[in-house]
Amino acid sequence: MDLTKATKAELEAQLSELNARYEGYKAQGLKLNMARGKPGADQLDACEGMLTAVKTSADTVYEGLDTRNYGTLEGIPACRKLFADLLQVPVEQVLAGGNSSLTFMYDTMDRLMLFGAAGVDEPWVKQDKVKFLCPVPGYDRHFAVCQQFGIEMINVPMDENGPDMDLVERLVAEDAAIKGIWCVPKFSNPTGVVYSDEVVRRFANLKPAAKDFRIFWDNAYIIHGITDETIEIPNIIEECAKAGNPDMVFEFCSTSKVSFPGAGVCAFAASPANVAWQLKYMNAQQIGPDKINQLRHVLFFKDLAGLKAHMEIHKKLLKPKFDAVIDTLEQNLAGTGAGSWSAPKGGYFISFDAMEGCAKRIQQLCKEAGIVMTGAGATYPYGKDPKDSNLRIAPSFPPIEELKLAMEVFCVCALKASCEKLLENK
Amino acid sequence: MDLTKATKAELEAQLSELNARYEGYKAQGLKLNMARGKPGADQLDACEGMLTAVKTSADTVYEGLDTRNYGTLEGIPACRKLFADLLQVPVEQVLAGGNSSLTFMYDTMDRLMLFGAAGVDEPWVKQDKVKFLCPVPGYDRHFAVCQQFGIEMINVPMDENGPDMDLVERLVAEDAAIKGIWCVPKFSNPTGVVYSDEVVRRFANLKPAAKDFRIFWDNAYIIHGITDETIEIPNIIEECAKAGNPDMVFEFCSTSKVSFPGAGVCAFAASPANVAWQLKYMNAQQIGPDKINQLRHVLFFKDLAGLKAHMEIHKKLLKPKFDAVIDTLEQNLAGTGAGSWSAPKGGYFISFDAMEGCAKRIQQLCKEAGIVMTGAGATYPYGKDPKDSNLRIAPSFPPIEELKLAMEVFCVCALKASCEKLLENK
Repeated sequence: MDLTKATKAELEAQLSELNARYEGYKAQGLKLNMARGKPGADQLDACEGMLTAVKTSADTVYEGLDTRNYGTLEGIPACRKLFADLLQVPVEQVLAGGNSSLTFMYDTMDRLMLFGAAGVDEPWVKQDKVKFLCPVPGYDRHFAVCQQFGIEMINVPMDENGPDMDLVERLVAEDAAIKGIWCVPKFSNPTGVVYSDEVVRRFANLKPAAKDFRIFWDNAYIIHGITDETIEIPNIIEECAKAGNPDMVFEFCSTSKVSFPGAGVCAFAASPANVAWQLKYMNAQQIGPDKINQLRHVLFFKDLAGLKAHMEIHKKLLKPKFDAVIDTLEQNLAGTGAGSWSAPKGGYFISFDAMEGCAKRIQQLCKEAGIVMTGAGATYPYGKDPKDSNLRIAPSFPPIEELKLAMEVFCVCALKASCEKLLENK
Repeated sequence: MDLTKATKAELEAQLSELNARYEGYKAQGLKLNMARGKPGADQLDACEGMLTAVKTSADTVYEGLDTRNYGTLEGIPACRKLFADLLQVPVEQVLAGGNSSLTFMYDTMDRLMLFGAAGVDEPWVKQDKVKFLCPVPGYDRHFAVCQQFGIEMINVPMDENGPDMDLVERLVAEDAAIKGIWCVPKFSNPTGVVYSDEVVRRFANLKPAAKDFRIFWDNAYIIHGITDETIEIPNIIEECAKAGNPDMVFEFCSTSKVSFPGAGVCAFAASPANVAWQLKYMNAQQIGPDKINQLRHVLFFKDLAGLKAHMEIHKKLLKPKFDAVIDTLEQNLAGTGAGSWSAPKGGYFISFDAMEGCAKRIQQLCKEAGIVMTGAGATYPYGKDPKDSNLRIAPSFPPIEELKLAMEVFCVCALKASCEKLLENK
């Protein structure tokens, strides 16, 4: 039934039935979690061999380097090479880091705040106002970085090709206080959108008023497809160089969702000037990354082909979970008007757009029934979704039977919230 | 011969002989390094078992926590417990971090710069001037942190009991721009000085004009004795709390010189308010430390007794190296007036005070003979040793035969530089 066209009596009948189902679920005392994009234990098990990739003291010496000792701020050469092949940039333009690209992003923003960009050297913290563009819905941890540094965030809508580039081009040209933008260009968090070639090239060709404008290109899901389709996007580092904007972009990626979320390795890629800038400031902060762990990754994955082969295992484990979520949504919500959802070809999330004004209520109902969701609003800067509509579903962590049950409950909550909302105006 | 009492002719004769010996060494084309406090490969080999302490997927789940996945910003409980026992503070007051206490120190300073201290919340970067006290000679990487943040450094002399506390007390009481001090309280870098109980308690009882004054207590060598003597210093966290200054100190330590320098784990300990402050800001920067590596440490060392037993192995490996350095200095320089040196009971360095105005020359002579030393001046803020006298000798890394040879060369360089210096005024 299309709830948006139902009469008051029909809605009341529906709600009464939904309430009964909802109370039934509540009585089960469920405890299920679809909140964070955590890989499942089965995905992590696939990397078991990495734990013993470096077994002996002799193993720790690789290409003449003792990975146990101090030094090598830029990461071990073989790990930089692995990331260089993945990102398709020269190895000199890649730094291999520790267990978190988020930390690399935060620290990069920190250096911009305190010391200013390469060749500009005007600390952002000394400026009246610093603003960042935030494509929405987006990644809550990106927004949290801006919020911590007091950077004002401006929402930019997304469509199926990426951010609204007319708006991006106009805003950055007009306002020199706009210093950057967050991007997840491939299987965007949470929509799964892949930026079109045109969008990527328009990014590379931006003409910002701020000479220290920086694109934070978080290529978190670069090899995280869940279909058999080969999906590639243009190389932003190369495109920026071609466009005469070599220093405008910082690219980040990690193996957090390839090897181990807490014990992976990450990378930063940028122009030679930006790499030199990064190293200069890193030198006072760091003794170098955990090189033994970088070596574990090199020995376990061997090369780019090894990385990609490993992701085939993840694909096989994740695809049924995404399918389960989408099938459950289809079966329960299609044609009801209670919401729409993305059907991504990769990444970690399904983005659900509820009937306006219902997202918080759905999250609350889920919570009371023992289903933990990412907070409504989390996909928007300051946690403020202007339509109170978007919810992020993370299908990777729960075992599939739990996931199906959680999604059944979620659908009942979405329908119930929609009926309640529609009845408010009847 | 006491060079300071020699005649011009005697000095010329000495120098001529020294030049011959020096040229002899130069001709050997040596390549030896006494620059950094890097553990020797034999010390690292002693930790080989840690590499396979976590072998299987099942091993990674410890006390109900899957150490492979995201989360646990404060570090895994068992690792916090290990550090809590080491530092003798409640486990709630300890955070277990990644592979570098230097990074933890830098990040802590960064948060003071950008956000201000707990309960004060006045960013240091917004203030006209921020100053730090730096006991000298000291650790170059501490000074590099201040220099990067534009913090003005003020030298404070050290004696055999620690920093000159009369001066410290007076300066912090007089000048509200003085926001902190660097301390290596046990086996200080580079002198090996152990702060006396009185010095520690005077630190805890400081009455700084700045309400956000902070002691950076880098307890880097807490279990790094090289004699059989048991050396303990008062617990600064406890002493500060007793003195009514619970928030005045941040304590740091790491296993960089216990397990692996590049792949160890570190800790931050402080008052409950400071721990909450640290976590609040860490939350935007980090996904949590490498928990698998923390677990490796827990399983390999087991407990504080295990840590200490492991350090007995280091002691046996390091003591002969320290002895070799000191014996060579004794044999070649005692009574010559060419310098004096520390005879530390622990830590990683021997501090050498050359005849005034000779340190740079000695380092240069060593370099030309193929011996890399820590840069003269490095033990002072801004690399400026007012007397051009102090040199830091790091005996841990070279094999003992190389070390002995390097020290022979060093002594010839010290004598040669002294003769040259004395002849300038004859």
